[in-house]
Amino acid sequence: MKTCEGYLYKRDGTFQQGLVCTGAILPPTNISPSSSEIFDVIVLGAGFAGLTACRDLTLSGYKVLLLDARDRVGGRTYTANVDGHLYEMGGTWVHWQQPHVYREMSRYGFTKMVDSINSDTGCNYSTVTVNGETTHLNKDDEFNAVTKSVEEFCNVDGESGRLIMPFPHDPHFNPEVAEYEKLSAAERMEQVRSKLNDLQIVVLEAAISASSGNSLENTSFFEILRWWALCNYSITGLSDFTERYKIAAGQSEFARAFFDEALATGNLSYSFGTHIRSVKDYGNMVALFSRSGEHFSGKRAVCTVPLNILHELKFEPNLPQKKTSASHQGHMNFCSKYHIEVQGANMRSWTAIAPPESRFISVLSDGLNPAGNTQLVGFAHESPVQGQEEGRDVLATAKKIHEMDIKKVVRILYLYTYCSFTYEATSYQVWHNWVADPFSRGTWAMFPPNFSFKYLEALRQRHGNVLFASGDWALGWRGFIDGAVEEGTRVAKEIAVELSHPHPVAPSSQTKAYIKPLL
Amino acid sequence: MKTCEGYLYKRDGTFQQGLVCTGAILPPTNISPSSSEIFDVIVLGAGFAGLTACRDLTLSGYKVLLLDARDRVGGRTYTANVDGHLYEMGGTWVHWQQPHVYREMSRYGFTKMVDSINSDTGCNYSTVTVNGETTHLNKDDEFNAVTKSVEEFCNVDGESGRLIMPFPHDPHFNPEVAEYEKLSAAERMEQVRSKLNDLQIVVLEAAISASSGNSLENTSFFEILRWWALCNYSITGLSDFTERYKIAAGQSEFARAFFDEALATGNLSYSFGTHIRSVKDYGNMVALFSRSGEHFSGKRAVCTVPLNILHELKFEPNLPQKKTSASHQGHMNFCSKYHIEVQGANMRSWTAIAPPESRFISVLSDGLNPAGNTQLVGFAHESPVQGQEEGRDVLATAKKIHEMDIKKVVRILYLYTYCSFTYEATSYQVWHNWVADPFSRGTWAMFPPNFSFKYLEALRQRHGNVLFASGDWALGWRGFIDGAVEEGTRVAKEIAVELSHPHPVAPSSQTKAYIKPLL
Repeated sequence: MKTCEGYLYKRDGTFQQGLVCTGAILPPTNISPSSSEIFDVIVLGAGFAGLTACRDLTLSGYKVLLLDARDRVGGRTYTANVDGHLYEMGGTWVHWQQPHVYREMSRYGFTKMVDSINSDTGCNYSTVTVNGETTHLNKDDEFNAVTKSVEEFCNVDGESGRLIMPFPHDPHFNPEVAEYEKLSAAERMEQVRSKLNDLQIVVLEAAISASSGNSLENTSFFEILRWWALCNYSITGLSDFTERYKIAAGQSEFARAFFDEALATGNLSYSFGTHIRSVKDYGNMVALFSRSGEHFSGKRAVCTVPLNILHELKFEPNLPQKKTSASHQGHMNFCSKYHIEVQGANMRSWTAIAPPESRFISVLSDGLNPAGNTQLVGFAHESPVQGQEEGRDVLATAKKIHEMDIKKVVRILYLYTYCSFTYEATSYQVWHNWVADPFSRGTWAMFPPNFSFKYLEALRQRHGNVLFASGDWALGWRGFIDGAVEEGTRVAKEIAVELSHPHPVAPSSQTKAYIKPLL
Repeated sequence: MKTCEGYLYKRDGTFQQGLVCTGAILPPTNISPSSSEIFDVIVLGAGFAGLTACRDLTLSGYKVLLLDARDRVGGRTYTANVDGHLYEMGGTWVHWQQPHVYREMSRYGFTKMVDSINSDTGCNYSTVTVNGETTHLNKDDEFNAVTKSVEEFCNVDGESGRLIMPFPHDPHFNPEVAEYEKLSAAERMEQVRSKLNDLQIVVLEAAISASSGNSLENTSFFEILRWWALCNYSITGLSDFTERYKIAAGQSEFARAFFDEALATGNLSYSFGTHIRSVKDYGNMVALFSRSGEHFSGKRAVCTVPLNILHELKFEPNLPQKKTSASHQGHMNFCSKYHIEVQGANMRSWTAIAPPESRFISVLSDGLNPAGNTQLVGFAHESPVQGQEEGRDVLATAKKIHEMDIKKVVRILYLYTYCSFTYEATSYQVWHNWVADPFSRGTWAMFPPNFSFKYLEALRQRHGNVLFASGDWALGWRGFIDGAVEEGTRVAKEIAVELSHPHPVAPSSQTKAYIKPLL
């Protein structure tokens, strides 16, 4: 199976759009175009919020129609298989302390994980540029610099943020946090700058920017505080919970588990490649209209359309002003993600923080592929170019970083002889530009300043028979797969309670016939 | 509603068995005694494992019969309401980093929590006896002593246990951990004793004993290592995740949410006060026989009977030897739990570690009641006495501790004048002896040495049409509510997949009739 999404730049210099992905659904629909079935629930969007809602509702016996403009499940997550290596193209890392996603991993038997972090192979250091000088930090020094700077940054209450945000899944709990929600990360930086040295400032700026996918000016300090609280107010937590453990089978296989379970109930209809342009609520039912002229009807609808494109969907009656305004402003995470294959295992432990003259915010090694080569993952700022041009642009940048590193590495090599270095040119490159993607227009949600207290509640509210579920407005792990599952679970529960009067007919009417009287 | 369980020793000196509890189910059954219905699934035990299985299966349309020998839901957890104060009589604390239970708290809207820890009221210190001398440690010194000693204790790999147990929800992942599974906590203590001072040894022994509810000799080091790993390999985690946050509405209300949701499907039958003595598997169905002569039949059964009493249940065919042996040996947590009310708020921040001449392992303040008095929670070693005698015995011990403390507190008071002390005699006392309880014979599961590698897999295996689910053999938060939910989820999934062929009939056959044609 293949999705039309994503790009691959191959060893032989050729270029390809579309990647092998088990999340792709073929045939793309199981309903007839002329069907006029009235569904219990229409779920718009097959990301984890939509899949969770579908799964819960179909298991409870409701007839559900799942619609998605893409050709695959997973939304802002999918796994590409290139020569036997699984590339996570979007949301990647999970953790057993992310409650909603881990519950699902456990339930589906996807608890086998792969550890992205390695610290004993080849160049076990971090490349950092401070005051124009590129240095190699050993990992302990990097850890200490990040620890000191992030702790200083988040310690607004003398208790490392524990007083101001005691319940990370209820981030508005302490009303005094509102004051920090108005601050940008840049403004907070000015409050602590004098307590930090140059190295600490560089690694802190990189850590913030890598989390938010944007500048410190556009990032709300509150969002960084939330991550910090979710990660047990600790650097180890930040690293372990947010960019360390991958599902071994890949996110697409995981997403398929939801889809396949829903499908097995016999209650799931679906239509991929179906781009909905408008939603009309008739009071006792909802109709969704596609760009190609189809329409679909249900008693309820679940809208999981991402925050940054929600305003493109027309609603009748109109959405409340706050929802529309929130979507127009949108979240501000405009990261792009790149996978780069480097020959040999010698960069397996390497990381880079905001390398100079680079669109990359951070680069880290993510594992070895079946060929024994190192897989680097890079996060870059928004790019003005797209498609093939973007691929070449990033490739040039990546080469630049690596070539600079070669010199340094070779030098350190001879000085310390702690790794045998066999670096060669970048070969494969795989990427997805989530900012250019018309169905996301951004990556994992990060709010700008003055957004959460103003809009979060409104984003979570239903609009008549339409309920809204997205990791973009989750309470806890917002912007993570966990938050999407949290949201899908929430709205499915609400709808199931509403539609359960009268009680659903029990499915197991064959019970008595099945059992022979033995007693 | 009232359960016949638990004991209350009142201010006026009178004594009462039975407590007000919303987990009590009245009437105790909704099936007719002469019913010969063949259920899809019979769930034996209405603790969180059983409730979760019931909820999942009834939502999926299966006809479920829930049986329990008690008069209430919750198993080894329930909440007693005495004069408006909620006493958690069993399992109490939860955390958002316990994935299975938090997913349910989130789904049911039970995320409002109460913080047991307080550090700014009255006697903000810990009473510890070292070498016969009772001292008051300030909380920082206590934290440092515990941190140093537990880190030393668990650091078997130079990485604080992260290498030997990298995945706490898969504790056998690294086969080298088998070596530590053979060790008792006492043996491990001997390996680190020389690195610790007397105070550190005392607080470490108390911390282990309070976790395992037994002596260090009977506790497996592996179990302590598991808790440590689950708690992010940190003392803050150990405190925050295992004894800090309570569900504000109480565990019984939470348990009721599962029960009530299952009931609302119309697919749940139940019979409380029903003590099952034997289970017979006929191959294509299972029958359960009660002590009072009733029998119940289903296609599958879920047995959630706790480890320590599983061997009392007769199976035909016989259970595999390993399951029976595991149950006969049992887990070794024989803690008793006591709530003690002390006049005024001055002991609100107080804790005690293994007070001398005491059956208590630890005492901590857990909050204030509506009367403004302090609620202390004590964990004590197994007691030879029961009922009214036990109440008097513990009361005497408690008074002894407090009177000893009064002197100290008064002395410190006059030295430092940092609290106004209005201590008077213990008034209320509420307790449940889970060791004497015939339906538990122990508290939260903690394995002895040489148990987990030998028995865990066997305990988790099904036996024909009977599946076994209990927090006592969960993979992750074993012995916690989280582990029970994990287990209920697991077996419900397994059964639903089996019984779903052929697909359940869709419940919403009324769909078309309900919607008026509007398009």
